[in-house]
Amino acid sequence: MSTDKAARRAKFEGVWSVIHDELLSHFKACGMPTDAQDWYSKNLQYNVPGGKLNRGMSVVDTAEILKGRPLTEEEYLQVAVLGWGVELFQAFFLVSDDLMDSSITRRGQPCWYRAPKVGLIAVNDAFMLEGAIYHLLKRHFKKELYYVDLLELFHETSYQTEIGQLIDLITAPDDAVDLSRFSLQKHSMIVVYKTAFYSFYLPVALAMLFCGIPTSYTLHNSSPVAPYEVAKGILIPLGEYFQIQDDFLDFAGVPAQIGKVGTDIVDNKCSWCINTALSLATSEQRKILNENYGVKPTPEEKEISKKMAEGKNGEEQGYLGDAEKRVKAVFEEVGLRKIYAEYEESVYKKLIRMIDPIDEGTPGQEGVLKKDVFASFLHKIYRRQK
Amino acid sequence: MSTDKAARRAKFEGVWSVIHDELLSHFKACGMPTDAQDWYSKNLQYNVPGGKLNRGMSVVDTAEILKGRPLTEEEYLQVAVLGWGVELFQAFFLVSDDLMDSSITRRGQPCWYRAPKVGLIAVNDAFMLEGAIYHLLKRHFKKELYYVDLLELFHETSYQTEIGQLIDLITAPDDAVDLSRFSLQKHSMIVVYKTAFYSFYLPVALAMLFCGIPTSYTLHNSSPVAPYEVAKGILIPLGEYFQIQDDFLDFAGVPAQIGKVGTDIVDNKCSWCINTALSLATSEQRKILNENYGVKPTPEEKEISKKMAEGKNGEEQGYLGDAEKRVKAVFEEVGLRKIYAEYEESVYKKLIRMIDPIDEGTPGQEGVLKKDVFASFLHKIYRRQK
Repeated sequence: MSTDKAARRAKFEGVWSVIHDELLSHFKACGMPTDAQDWYSKNLQYNVPGGKLNRGMSVVDTAEILKGRPLTEEEYLQVAVLGWGVELFQAFFLVSDDLMDSSITRRGQPCWYRAPKVGLIAVNDAFMLEGAIYHLLKRHFKKELYYVDLLELFHETSYQTEIGQLIDLITAPDDAVDLSRFSLQKHSMIVVYKTAFYSFYLPVALAMLFCGIPTSYTLHNSSPVAPYEVAKGILIPLGEYFQIQDDFLDFAGVPAQIGKVGTDIVDNKCSWCINTALSLATSEQRKILNENYGVKPTPEEKEISKKMAEGKNGEEQGYLGDAEKRVKAVFEEVGLRKIYAEYEESVYKKLIRMIDPIDEGTPGQEGVLKKDVFASFLHKIYRRQK
Repeated sequence: MSTDKAARRAKFEGVWSVIHDELLSHFKACGMPTDAQDWYSKNLQYNVPGGKLNRGMSVVDTAEILKGRPLTEEEYLQVAVLGWGVELFQAFFLVSDDLMDSSITRRGQPCWYRAPKVGLIAVNDAFMLEGAIYHLLKRHFKKELYYVDLLELFHETSYQTEIGQLIDLITAPDDAVDLSRFSLQKHSMIVVYKTAFYSFYLPVALAMLFCGIPTSYTLHNSSPVAPYEVAKGILIPLGEYFQIQDDFLDFAGVPAQIGKVGTDIVDNKCSWCINTALSLATSEQRKILNENYGVKPTPEEKEISKKMAEGKNGEEQGYLGDAEKRVKAVFEEVGLRKIYAEYEESVYKKLIRMIDPIDEGTPGQEGVLKKDVFASFLHKIYRRQK
């Protein structure tokens, strides 16, 4: 990590301790027993601050781009609360997703529901992470004209994410493989609803609200702009691209580079790779996919995998079982790497064509969209290897 | 049920089908796959409308009392949406509570997480029931001046209910009995946060907002009234009374009358009965409670219980195991029935003393509190046997 990035992260993390203390003080002031205070504090510390913080920090970054200048300390604190709102939002979903998916580890530690004494209490803990968002918004934004817009944005994004999660859960249950339920269209639906809205549109729209960007404006007597619609029109395909890339790296990425071993095939995930392969497979290839996709490693294969993982700090480490090997062979046969490369170039060009014509008004003008909001996301993602 | 009550219920249920169709239409309009549409519809129908509907209908009843006249059709529809909001809120918590508590049946059918194919997907289904509330509020109340107050009221009540659930879960885990964690003070905390806010204050406060009751008003030049604080001051102890009564009926109620067999003792519940008994027990009695509270029936006892329940439509039926008998004997020895009767009379008088002095303004005056809002609740509860 560059020094600049590390410093930015440290500053953002500094606001977390303010937020944590604020939530705990309120809890204490309500007269909560100390064991409940300790539990809530642990829930917050275990689940909220330990990730990459990309989503939360992108609220701050976007606000700086839109303002066209560094934020004052007061502005920084307020916008960082929105950033941590996105991180709380993500924690709410990750805690419950890990439970529903029976996942093992998250961010290098056991998933919260697997922590001592937690178990199904994780469900209520997830609710409390969500509840904290609205408590914070009320404390920090009640006086703002856009307060109700913030509430609606979080509500709508929650509902969208839940809808995406529902489609994902019933399309690709962990225990019943049925590739006939899969399709590229369903994949797109899942990705847009479950990931793109909250990871890309939510942070940018929050920063836009904070910066006072109105629902509609007109520049130089040209036709009116609906900036939130423009942002959504770019960020949703951008988020889809990001997730397709994630899916592709799960298959083709170098474990040492991406920091994990792909498990989508074994986990019966409705990934871009399997859906693309299905759309191109011959009937023989489809048969191989049907018989091998989502098939767990045999006990012997698991044993080897376990040995390979030893001394690796509890992180899930993979080992290619025979079923997984056969699936990967079909992915190669249909030419998935080439198709991905073509997709990446075409979506990149498409996004550039959407970003380029954005009218930024006069230099330094506030309250309008800036190309760099989108371009900076795109350049972080384009051709990434990890 | 009286004809009047049945008709009122039928009218309220009529609005549910409008709400259900509205939620599904939106789902469809988002392009959701049909299996996801069917799933969501089933989630809604299975979990929302099948209860007693007391909480939801009390929003409508309170609005009628406050207006002092029957509602117009338009008013009825709008206020019934708030009532169904409370029922959705309750469904959100019941679906997740049942999962966390490993409950078996709810409203005469298997708990949702035990329905075919559901399992842990129930967690996301619970979120979607909550998400539906804000979607409906936006559609039906966005133009109202009190829209943001509605949002905040639901947020705050969610957070309170989650806090109460947390204390309950860590104070009385199903698998580890430790009566030293119990106290009447903790019981009160759990009851107020987990039940009273959402069951009593939420419905009345929603109706007050709908009826345009301001945060503060002054009548006949007397000192200013803070009506939401007055309502909370009455409804929270009223809700606590209701739950203490519920706890007492679980121990002393006649199963044929209350429609269920009490399971609080076997389930290690932090109930008013055990906490009161603990506060009065001799060291010998405390020892008996420690050794027998939360102790599951033996396999033989379970077998007898199962036989007794046969042909009773899947409802949980109880049978007194020896451990439970010993606990109940201590409850009788400390005089729990008498203490309850005294409590009931004293809380009744206290509540009457709070309701009586409420100033209702001039006859027919709108926008002010009415005694009957509270008196009607109190008279439904006082000395109830079921």
